[in-house]
Parts: sequence; structure tokens; C-alpha cells
Amino acid sequence: MGYVAPSTGRVIRAVLFDTFGSVVDWRSGVAREVSVFAARHHVELDEWAFADAWRSRYQPSMEPVRSGAREFVPLDVLHRENLLVTLTEFGLDPTGIHDAEIDALNTAWERLDPWPDSVEGLRVLGEQVIVGPLSNANLALLLHMAQRARLPWTVIVGSDATRAYKPDPRAYRNVAEMLRLEPGEVMLAAAHNGDLRAAGTAGLATAFFARPTEHGPAQTTDLRAEGTWDVVCDDIVDLARRIAEPGAARG
Amino acid sequence: MGYVAPSTGRVIRAVLFDTFGSVVDWRSGVAREVSVFAARHHVELDEWAFADAWRSRYQPSMEPVRSGAREFVPLDVLHRENLLVTLTEFGLDPTGIHDAEIDALNTAWERLDPWPDSVEGLRVLGEQVIVGPLSNANLALLLHMAQRARLPWTVIVGSDATRAYKPDPRAYRNVAEMLRLEPGEVMLAAAHNGDLRAAGTAGLATAFFARPTEHGPAQTTDLRAEGTWDVVCDDIVDLARRIAEPGAARG
Repeated sequence: MGYVAPSTGRVIRAVLFDTFGSVVDWRSGVAREVSVFAARHHVELDEWAFADAWRSRYQPSMEPVRSGAREFVPLDVLHRENLLVTLTEFGLDPTGIHDAEIDALNTAWERLDPWPDSVEGLRVLGEQVIVGPLSNANLALLLHMAQRARLPWTVIVGSDATRAYKPDPRAYRNVAEMLRLEPGEVMLAAAHNGDLRAAGTAGLATAFFARPTEHGPAQTTDLRAEGTWDVVCDDIVDLARRIAEPGAARG
Repeated sequence: MGYVAPSTGRVIRAVLFDTFGSVVDWRSGVAREVSVFAARHHVELDEWAFADAWRSRYQPSMEPVRSGAREFVPLDVLHRENLLVTLTEFGLDPTGIHDAEIDALNTAWERLDPWPDSVEGLRVLGEQVIVGPLSNANLALLLHMAQRARLPWTVIVGSDATRAYKPDPRAYRNVAEMLRLEPGEVMLAAAHNGDLRAAGTAGLATAFFARPTEHGPAQTTDLRAEGTWDVVCDDIVDLARRIAEPGAARG
């Protein structure tokens, strides 16, 4: 039968994950790539502050697309625009840097390490349900990330396929439709209460686990569940255990 | 370095496959499903003729979408419309059949067996390049097909992501763009000369292998290569051998 989500009353067929922060550690990965870039260009900068500054432009840059003021462009494009501004903010003139070097740094978002439980949790969960990302990232980024980090996704639907950015309800509903599932048969799993709130409003089931160091040691947000999510668990391995069919053999 | 396609002069990063007929045997699979359906409904019909009739409506049904006369709809929708007409043609009144029964028969296109070389060929090829379908089918259909037939795709981009039906050049170019590859870094592998002609015109590299019984024992079309394709080979295992980096260890 499978796991029935209390909020939707449906058997869950797919568990889809927020990716940056929930499955992979973007801050450490981006800081590492920035540090390599800085060393090669013989500049001194705080790579952690750079990672935070680059990331801080992430949500605002999607806003014009969400509102319809700007036509959909893949996240790669927004990341690159945000990178140019961030470089300038840190005193580097991007016009003095080769395009290929900018492009290479822009792919830092593909070279992020999974949290310790991610690969094993996804593997076990994937024996029972479809597992995939439900991220604002585009397919190429998610594919390269999965190949490097060995994330065992069943399927990857990028935001360039749904052409919508979370928390736009279409981002959640379009992926369910492409999987030929009802929204209530899909669960969003994330370390972000705001993402889960939007997913729940769009009709999806929800699972929360905290990533208390996503934003560094002094993190103050998303340390605990702030809603009545279907599952509140420790991490992805724990989630796989909770979703396991009662009585079914466990991997 | 990898395999350089003569026609594009580029190293091939992804080999994408036509699916119905090239990777899986649609005629036998659909005939089997139709036969089960006919038995359950206590009707006599020629399941092979039914499969051929249903398939004959496939290309014409995409034409209004290709021309822009009809907004894009997923292949599932076209398959179902074509099924209703085919049922009527075979003397069955679809209004007398439960919607759920029609829907179930419509998923026959997901329960198709791979040709004997397909799974092994894709597995070996997948060790060297990205392998995926480049089909007019939508994601859900391709995902269910892959799960049942154990097709080891690296990635699945359905026509509902590219929103274009082959041989529209956008069908080929959009998938390359989503993979962040130049068209010339992508190879279409197919048992259909017409598909390869369109892919070549769109800038892709091309590989041909024949499936001489796709249309049954009396097949007269696509028995041999009719163009100067980059690779002309026996089957997918042979293709994997040809694409293998010269001197590289072979699986």
C-alpha cells in the first residue's frame, strides 16, 4: 500500500526534495570554489562572506520571473547575473576576468557536497517511491550535481521544465502533473518551513528535517518545524524509515 | 577525449535515443496489451492489426501541434484520442467502456519490452556519455517505461519539457540546450532514417541501426541506412563499442 500522508489522505508515490541546503551543503561548497578562484586570481577575500552575498541575491533575482515581469530564464542565467554583481561588491571588476573563468565559477553550484545522510537516505527511499529534486535549479545544474555527488535520483525535473520558480504554486503542481500524479500523492521534503508552507498550499504532502548549519554556525532560522507537516524527522535516512511501509522489510 | 563525430567535429557528450521502435518493441508490447484487454471484454479482434492501426494515427495526431494549429498537449493525450478512434474503427463503442479501462489500455505504451541488446548497450554507453531518450513521449510515460524495462537512462527529458514534437528542429535543439550542450555535442541514435535526417539538419550527430521487425515480419522501410550518418551499426551494444574512446578499456 505505502505511506498515506495525513494532510492529503493519499498514498505517497514520489518524495521530491528541496536541494540547496536540504540535500547539499551549498555554503561550504560555494566557499570552497570561491577560495580556489580567489587563489588563482591572486585576490584576497572572505570566501564565506562571498558565498553568503552571492546566495543572498538568489531569492530576489527570481522575483521578476515569479511576478511575470520577466520571461522565464534558467537559474544558470540568474546565478551568473548575481555573480557579476557580487564580484563587483567584493571589489573585483568582472570585465577584467575572462568569460570562461566566470562561467567556471558559476558552476560552483554543481560542485556541492551532500549532507552525510543524503545519499544513503535517497537510496533507501528510492526503493519505495520516486525520488527527485524539486528545486529552482535547472536540469543541467541538477544533473551535474547528481553525477558528482552520486545522488541516486529516480528522475530529475528541473525548473526549466516546469518553467516556474518556487514558491509559485505552479512549480509544485507542474512537476506532479509531469509525473502524472495528483499533488496529494507527492511529498516535498525540505529543511525550509517557507518552502513547505507553499507546497502544502499547492496541495502537496510535506516533510521537514533541520539543517542547522546550512547558513553557518550562527544560524537562527529553520532550526525546527514551524508548521504541522506530515513528517518531522531528523534527516533523510530517518525520513526513509518513516515512509517505509509498515511491516515492510527495511534496507 | 571521447568520440568525435565527423559531421559536427565535436566530442559527443550525450547519446540520445529514439525510443518507440529503436529501444523498445512497441508492436509486440501493444499487441499483447490489446489482447489482454480484448479477452477481458470478451471481444475478438486482431491485436496486431489493432496495434498497427493505433500506431498509424501517431504521426498525424502530432501534426497540428507541430504546425502551431494546436497548443502543445502531452503524448498521453494524443495516444488516448487515437485509442478512442481505433476502438471505434474495430467495432467497439468507447462510450460503453469505463474511463479507467481506457486509461489502463492507454498505458500500454509504457509496458513495452526492450530489444535484446538495448539494456546492455545503454549500460555500457552510459559509462562514457550521458544517455537518455529523445522521444515524442512525455516524462511520465518514459519514466514508467524505464522502470519496467530497466532502461539505465542517465537522464530523461520528455517532450513535455521541450514542448516540441520531432521532427520539429526545436525538439532536438531544446534538449541539447537543457543539457547545456551544443547540438553538435549530442548524437541522436535511431532506427529511423527520417528522424536522423531531421536531427542532422538541427545540428546533431547521428547513429543508425536497423530494427528490421519493428513493423512485423514484412517490414519494407528503414531496413538500412539511407544517409551518411556518423555511425552505422548493428545495434546498441555495437554503438557503445564504436563510441568507446579508442584505447579505452571496454566493459
